[in-house]
Amino acid sequence: MYRIAVLQGDGIGKEVTKGAVNILQAIADRFGHTFHFSYGLIGGEAIDREGTPLPEQTLHLCKQSDAVLLGAVGGPKWDNNPPHLRPEKGLLQIRKEMNLFANIRPVTFYESLAASSPLKPHVIEGADFVIVRELTGGLYFGKPSERRIEKGEEAVVDTLFYKRAEIERIITFAFTLAQKRKKKVTSVDKANVLESSRMWREVAEQVAKRFPDVQLEHMLVDNAAMQLVRSPKQFDVIVTENMFGDILSDEASMLTGSLGMLPSASLSVDGPALYEPIHGSAPDIAGQNKANPLATILSVAMMLRLSFGLTEEADIVERAVKQVLDAGYRTVDIAQHGDCVLSTTEMVEKVKDAI
Amino acid sequence: MYRIAVLQGDGIGKEVTKGAVNILQAIADRFGHTFHFSYGLIGGEAIDREGTPLPEQTLHLCKQSDAVLLGAVGGPKWDNNPPHLRPEKGLLQIRKEMNLFANIRPVTFYESLAASSPLKPHVIEGADFVIVRELTGGLYFGKPSERRIEKGEEAVVDTLFYKRAEIERIITFAFTLAQKRKKKVTSVDKANVLESSRMWREVAEQVAKRFPDVQLEHMLVDNAAMQLVRSPKQFDVIVTENMFGDILSDEASMLTGSLGMLPSASLSVDGPALYEPIHGSAPDIAGQNKANPLATILSVAMMLRLSFGLTEEADIVERAVKQVLDAGYRTVDIAQHGDCVLSTTEMVEKVKDAI
Ligand SMILES: CC(C)[C@H](C(=O)O)[C@@H](O)C(=O)O
Ligand SMILES: CC(C)[C@H](C(=O)O)[C@@H](O)C(=O)O
Repeated sequence: MYRIAVLQGDGIGKEVTKGAVNILQAIADRFGHTFHFSYGLIGGEAIDREGTPLPEQTLHLCKQSDAVLLGAVGGPKWDNNPPHLRPEKGLLQIRKEMNLFANIRPVTFYESLAASSPLKPHVIEGADFVIVRELTGGLYFGKPSERRIEKGEEAVVDTLFYKRAEIERIITFAFTLAQKRKKKVTSVDKANVLESSRMWREVAEQVAKRFPDVQLEHMLVDNAAMQLVRSPKQFDVIVTENMFGDILSDEASMLTGSLGMLPSASLSVDGPALYEPIHGSAPDIAGQNKANPLATILSVAMMLRLSFGLTEEADIVERAVKQVLDAGYRTVDIAQHGDCVLSTTEMVEKVKDAI
Repeated sequence: MYRIAVLQGDGIGKEVTKGAVNILQAIADRFGHTFHFSYGLIGGEAIDREGTPLPEQTLHLCKQSDAVLLGAVGGPKWDNNPPHLRPEKGLLQIRKEMNLFANIRPVTFYESLAASSPLKPHVIEGADFVIVRELTGGLYFGKPSERRIEKGEEAVVDTLFYKRAEIERIITFAFTLAQKRKKKVTSVDKANVLESSRMWREVAEQVAKRFPDVQLEHMLVDNAAMQLVRSPKQFDVIVTENMFGDILSDEASMLTGSLGMLPSASLSVDGPALYEPIHGSAPDIAGQNKANPLATILSVAMMLRLSFGLTEEADIVERAVKQVLDAGYRTVDIAQHGDCVLSTTEMVEKVKDAI
């Protein structure tokens, strides 16, 4: 029996998690597993109902579970709330409270989606890399982060802060991952400007010594933003600071043609992991049964593999997604002229059929 | 008589500034202007010869000039120097000392370079926008930026700091620019996480009231990194924080196929402006007469227009570049299979002939 906490969140978060739960159910039926789903509030809906973006109860539920599935949070309704009453705060808090330091964002090229990508086929064909984003430190969490008066003038400050041990932990994680893959780590920083990046680079060099079979390369973040578009095939494992990882992984989603295709896993030091699509709550299409559920379905495939060790089951889900795409089924975000466009629920059914 | 300070810097900086000076000379000959060039040291070479990346003398020279032309700085030789003895420090210092708050990076689509871009032609055709990057504040200059011991542990901190007035200045600049263009400003921030971005967004809203004819749109930086690749045609003027602008403009260079195509101008509050290509010193190809001089040549076109008001002359340089590209001439960075590849000096000659 596997206990899964489901945090649907806002906007399309509801639709896509529903689809993914459906897929997990199909896997359970086929393999005789029992998945027990418990639902918790997070984000805007939690603010509306409980007055806080991350209710204590939700956090408790997640910590008691074997894995967490999250949809997405946020929407215009809460955009002008004070910082502590913003949906995103719930997401940042759960990452911090559950110690989810390693966010893994695999970027996979799908032959059949080449037409949806803004990039030329020869540029992306065969690209296959993972962005490892540090998730509980850096510019997202450093203090102070506040308004202040400096010499009589209004000013504002945010802080990029890391303990050396935090940098070491994420870089070690990246090397361990690369060892099981193509044995190359690209450490992305801005060492020609930031002191934190210079420490990052030092630590990367040190960690590399413990992994003589893995090649380490340093790349400046501006160059990385360019190289991701220019020749993404050069990458295997990219490891970087929280904010840099946020920017680069959204950019990298364009290799597959849509943010709606990219899953992620956030691993903890000591507790359950969390799985979420990298896309947001997309308020503009919420409730219209239009959203692409594949990123979330691929996220539960990662859950099966990484949290439950159910490798075969994970493979089957991933293969089912590939098969459905190869058969030409598309949600609107990845559809081209002439494609027959499916709704969210129809797409989920197709994947289910393929399982 | 126009006094131009030339800071060649390191690596290909020398070759590309030489080419651009050549072009300015051709313009002088044709129009009967006098350009007076004075040379100053900056970056790695300044460290080697004067023990500092920005000698007092260089700064003095620049401040006395009507405009500054900069090549590029940096190289592996100085990569392990302490922070204050790194070539990039010279660049950061000159930006700060000359009050170069507004870095303008136009991104122009060249029909004849469509083949060199990793992006599909229909995505980039007709794209024409400007990135306005704040250049003297933000994460680049905030203090503290240092190692420290926190609760007995090694740690590191960098600071993103802005005075409200600095944000207002750059956003006002962007609106003024948009008024002369397609009348749209995209303000890029990370307001769902950073306090500085929330102030940025507030200020943008306020400034927008003074420009009722210009449309303001807010975009999160992760989304912007994606949209630049997905549909760059939507943009007119993008305005953003220093580090965000650094990342996004390198990414955007891929629309033209090469970093070697993008010029920039950095405007001052109160003194001369500085012009530089957005590419770096490219140590790997330095001294080989291979570098693309067009970004620097296009930078001097910006100089002619913005610092000297020589609009016709600027147009002629830009048209000459276009003509040379249309005629099929390429440096190696923008060459495709079958192209006849020119050296740096040959490319400069072609542009000169076209003038
Ligand atoms: C919603 C937002 C706070 C979040 C982030 O910036 O981390 C999102 O963009 C992501 O990438 O998961
Ligand atoms: C060389 C470096 C310090 C510089 C920057 O980061 O500003 C460069 O990347 C640029 O964009 O001009």
